[in-house]
Amino acid sequence: MSTATAPAPTLEAQRAAQDVGVEMHALIADLYPICRSITGDGFRATLARLESLIPLTAHEVPTGTQVLDWTVPREWNIRDAYVKNARGERVVDFRDSSLHVLNYSVPVHRTVSLEELRAHCFTLPDHPDWIPYRTSYYREAWGFCLTQRQLDALAPGEYEVMIDSTLAPGHLTYGEVVLPGERPEEILVSCHACHPSLCNDNLSALVVATYLTRHLQRVRRRYTYRILFIPGTIGSITWLARNAAVVPRIKHGLVLAGVGDAGHMHYKRTRRGNAEIDQAVAHVLRHRGQPFVLMDFTPYGYDERQFCSPGYNLPVGCLSRTPYARYPEYHTSADNLDFVRPEALADSFAACLAVFDVLDGNETYVNQCPYGEPQLGRRGLYGAVGGQSEPREHELAMLWVLNLSDGSHTLLDIAERSGLSFNWIRRAASLLATHGLLARQVEATQ
Amino acid sequence: MSTATAPAPTLEAQRAAQDVGVEMHALIADLYPICRSITGDGFRATLARLESLIPLTAHEVPTGTQVLDWTVPREWNIRDAYVKNARGERVVDFRDSSLHVLNYSVPVHRTVSLEELRAHCFTLPDHPDWIPYRTSYYREAWGFCLTQRQLDALAPGEYEVMIDSTLAPGHLTYGEVVLPGERPEEILVSCHACHPSLCNDNLSALVVATYLTRHLQRVRRRYTYRILFIPGTIGSITWLARNAAVVPRIKHGLVLAGVGDAGHMHYKRTRRGNAEIDQAVAHVLRHRGQPFVLMDFTPYGYDERQFCSPGYNLPVGCLSRTPYARYPEYHTSADNLDFVRPEALADSFAACLAVFDVLDGNETYVNQCPYGEPQLGRRGLYGAVGGQSEPREHELAMLWVLNLSDGSHTLLDIAERSGLSFNWIRRAASLLATHGLLARQVEATQ
Amino acid sequence: MSTATAPAPTLEAQRAAQDVGVEMHALIADLYPICRSITGDGFRATLARLESLIPLTAHEVPTGTQVLDWTVPREWNIRDAYVKNARGERVVDFRDSSLHVLNYSVPVHRTVSLEELRAHCFTLPDHPDWIPYRTSYYREAWGFCLTQRQLDALAPGEYEVMIDSTLAPGHLTYGEVVLPGERPEEILVSCHACHPSLCNDNLSALVVATYLTRHLQRVRRRYTYRILFIPGTIGSITWLARNAAVVPRIKHGLVLAGVGDAGHMHYKRTRRGNAEIDQAVAHVLRHRGQPFVLMDFTPYGYDERQFCSPGYNLPVGCLSRTPYARYPEYHTSADNLDFVRPEALADSFAACLAVFDVLDGNETYVNQCPYGEPQLGRRGLYGAVGGQSEPREHELAMLWVLNLSDGSHTLLDIAERSGLSFNWIRRAASLLATHGLLARQVEATQ
Repeated sequence: MSTATAPAPTLEAQRAAQDVGVEMHALIADLYPICRSITGDGFRATLARLESLIPLTAHEVPTGTQVLDWTVPREWNIRDAYVKNARGERVVDFRDSSLHVLNYSVPVHRTVSLEELRAHCFTLPDHPDWIPYRTSYYREAWGFCLTQRQLDALAPGEYEVMIDSTLAPGHLTYGEVVLPGERPEEILVSCHACHPSLCNDNLSALVVATYLTRHLQRVRRRYTYRILFIPGTIGSITWLARNAAVVPRIKHGLVLAGVGDAGHMHYKRTRRGNAEIDQAVAHVLRHRGQPFVLMDFTPYGYDERQFCSPGYNLPVGCLSRTPYARYPEYHTSADNLDFVRPEALADSFAACLAVFDVLDGNETYVNQCPYGEPQLGRRGLYGAVGGQSEPREHELAMLWVLNLSDGSHTLLDIAERSGLSFNWIRRAASLLATHGLLARQVEATQ
Repeated sequence: MSTATAPAPTLEAQRAAQDVGVEMHALIADLYPICRSITGDGFRATLARLESLIPLTAHEVPTGTQVLDWTVPREWNIRDAYVKNARGERVVDFRDSSLHVLNYSVPVHRTVSLEELRAHCFTLPDHPDWIPYRTSYYREAWGFCLTQRQLDALAPGEYEVMIDSTLAPGHLTYGEVVLPGERPEEILVSCHACHPSLCNDNLSALVVATYLTRHLQRVRRRYTYRILFIPGTIGSITWLARNAAVVPRIKHGLVLAGVGDAGHMHYKRTRRGNAEIDQAVAHVLRHRGQPFVLMDFTPYGYDERQFCSPGYNLPVGCLSRTPYARYPEYHTSADNLDFVRPEALADSFAACLAVFDVLDGNETYVNQCPYGEPQLGRRGLYGAVGGQSEPREHELAMLWVLNLSDGSHTLLDIAERSGLSFNWIRRAASLLATHGLLARQVEATQ
Repeated sequence: MSTATAPAPTLEAQRAAQDVGVEMHALIADLYPICRSITGDGFRATLARLESLIPLTAHEVPTGTQVLDWTVPREWNIRDAYVKNARGERVVDFRDSSLHVLNYSVPVHRTVSLEELRAHCFTLPDHPDWIPYRTSYYREAWGFCLTQRQLDALAPGEYEVMIDSTLAPGHLTYGEVVLPGERPEEILVSCHACHPSLCNDNLSALVVATYLTRHLQRVRRRYTYRILFIPGTIGSITWLARNAAVVPRIKHGLVLAGVGDAGHMHYKRTRRGNAEIDQAVAHVLRHRGQPFVLMDFTPYGYDERQFCSPGYNLPVGCLSRTPYARYPEYHTSADNLDFVRPEALADSFAACLAVFDVLDGNETYVNQCPYGEPQLGRRGLYGAVGGQSEPREHELAMLWVLNLSDGSHTLLDIAERSGLSFNWIRRAASLLATHGLLARQVEATQ
């Protein structure tokens, strides 16, 4: 049986999708100049902008707090930084790009030879016009990131290096939104919000998560949704350390990262490999009519590393377009406003909503008339004239639902087994339930 | 290891197979003109013809009997039907083909305009010389099925439409043969016998089931065989409703349908997907040296839908040649005596017997000498001169049977694992048992 | 993730490998002329030569001893054999090749016609210059094996046939080496040593097993190693019958056979199919950068037949280069000193050591810091500058080990899952254990 997809979206729906793509791109443009890091005022300013759109709570965790095996680091803030040549010209200028400073650089202000300067510079020789993004969170260092052409243009001589930063006790900040649902079980959406002027990684996920939140606020929610805007690694570790009581309620989760480029969707499965979220994302991607790639879990990547550490082993996968490090613009100044596209953002947004829709509707029913087929025709559910070849999709969907609703198949299982889209299966189940032919299997409360 | 097939049949066996093919085709020709439906005298006449060949019992179930979720419908009988033009000529004549009437049409006799007549006509525009087969069992309607050319030739004007049918309380009829075996567990063979003048669907299965019955009557039977000739859907539902005590004894089952056309064998697995019947049919098809297709269960098709409904979940698969609706002649007047072939009928017959043969011989043995290999040479079971390359098939078969007869592998499992045909494996097991090297595992009575 | 192999061997290691290949080939040349059989002085002389290299114990089991389903046969010895023509010339001469006599021939000395002689001759018509190898262990017979050209050259007339052999009560001999390890569980290495002048089958395995023993004597051994030099079939049966107490301690086993030809490595899995030895050999072969073939168990082949009989079902696989009977030289005089190559012997030797190395290091660890990732950077285990693309292999290996060390994955499981070589994984585990991040799961003593 060929894979059956749901009907194509209406023109109106397509227009709405375009609009949300354009809005999300504009929000990226707003956030782009801010110099973010894993702590500090840049992170706070970013959350403040999002708070104007969604009911976000900013949490502050003091420096020195023990979080699992880690300690919340000192807070980093930066005001200015430059390299000046002998003529007093800024040859590297933080005001041009937040990437120019090695993120988390300690303050420095002195005169150095070109040779010493070079030991503190990071470039990309293969892409001489791009600035790399480099960090030194957990070892004290200072440095500049610049283009290879900038570096090559530096004549021998002395240079004034100045980084007006502070690395001092303060707080780690993260943002959180909780949208209560009918059930206490939660769907977690997490994105890292600690990268400075990089658009795909990860302003793209920040804005998609923001617009998903706006959408979810307005709809009936079976599950409770929790959306996290956190610094990478230390943020998820901090959140996990502070939310031991929430962790057991996480039933499904998605880390979003790099969802604005023009590449195909990629989904990295949870450590479990066969969680409901894995099945739901695979189903949605399979029925969208676009190329996609499913990847097994690896312990390298984004914050799914923490959620999927063996002590937690949460059902959290990672949704991206082109995966990290597989595009040359990754972690460089070329990951800019041109690299992310409104239509890609809109497409990622739509894919996430489709996944939530499947999770939301994925119930288990039990056929109340399991001996033989119930007589659908008598109930007006089946075509009257016999002898024609194939039943139509909604009839097939009813037959599949009746046949497999033995208490051990969810609607998503049935969709996958039948090759029909989840929407057909859910509609069929709903119709059959209305006629008393199916009963919803009671869900155990955790 | 390459797949080893049993030795080619003798010329005598080939001749016998041809004969049975010709006989079955002749029986189809006998039954072809009868207008069958899911109830009525056409069905009875068909069973009466079969009773001359096999010990069939005809069951009559009164209209209105509640059977599972269904009710036995009124009985339909028809004597004549036509459409007459203004000149009194029969332009559509039931006497030409039983397909000309919408099956289960209510009686009608009046004059209608061409326009009104058209609303009651069914044609096949893509095959303008073929009459379609259409039914309206569960909604009262009348209609004619005709060729597109017939319809196109009708000039504007008035037409006399006459269907001399009755739809009245009576009975549903089905035929059943039970051939007791050594064991109470049953092999079910079921075919729908409700289609009017359509040869492949399903007179082909009717005659194959009849000749299988004749064959099985004459041989030792490990299992009890039950052969059903029933109206589609309502027949299996009626049988299931009346045989709750038999159902648990059904160990293997085959629905036969469309087994007379020239296409390749197709087997649709049971809902369980890995039942012994699934394994046996796959093994037989794999070792016949002809192309074949294995298909997973779907809840659409023939009466396996009912046997495999979740409340029963019986191990019943469906054996066809070209599957329903995949050939243009399906459910049209082109499914005629030319469309079914003696050699295809004979081939389907032989395949079924081979499947029964495997099921019959599929025992589990336990190696009585499981530590090391027993010394076969000392017992005259193994070649004396060593050093040559490969043992012969019967030696390989003994080694496989000894190695895997640990109580958890049936002979069929061993055949599949070794790549040898079931016949080699069964012969080896029999020989080893004679020498006391194997003992049959005692079967639990259900 | 691409498959990562361990670093290439040093020149010194390559030189050492060449040396051991040359030494092994020289030992084959030493043993080649001896006429071995499943009993007798040829077998004893072979063991005596090996005793000069390794601490081998020769066991003698009397004729008539009941061993499982078998009986130790009479001992066979031979001094001379020939066929002389009418002119008294030796036209077939045992002194030219030990293959010229049907192995286990009873004594004979008489004059026969060419016709009668032919009935006792074995040739290879397709390879007219090669002598076949044939045996008649368990049925009394005499015969000569000769080239087709020799046979064709025999003129009609009378011939003197003489086989100066004895078949008399005596002993079956086999050799055994036990190298105790830290643990009582054993790794079994077995090879058949009963073939006369045939180099690949199986002097190749004899010498590889000998040099493996020499190597294993000098290293720390987690497991106890037991190396068997036995006559085929009757030898493994005899050993199994006499070692019921040892059998339960065999944790891994390899039958070595045909490991000196130029073909690719072939590994035949154990009957279990998923034993640790199966996993270890597959891993090693996969990471050597050479073509190889994995094959499922079949109950035909070498002594794995006995070790894998259903009563024992030991985890014993079989490692070969080109499998038996798949090369024309198999069991002919063309399996000579030119057919086996020093570099192939060295390669087989290295592959076996690599397998033992994996088995030796294949522990299960438990992550002591399973909630989130431990902070590797703080412990100096992780690069300090962030933002670059992929972690290096040793970093990836640490992440994989931490993520999967939940008590249900061995290091080999982790290597297979990650695509990294076992060496990377083992080193990572060792480093993490040193830092207290992993604890070794206590092994139950059997």
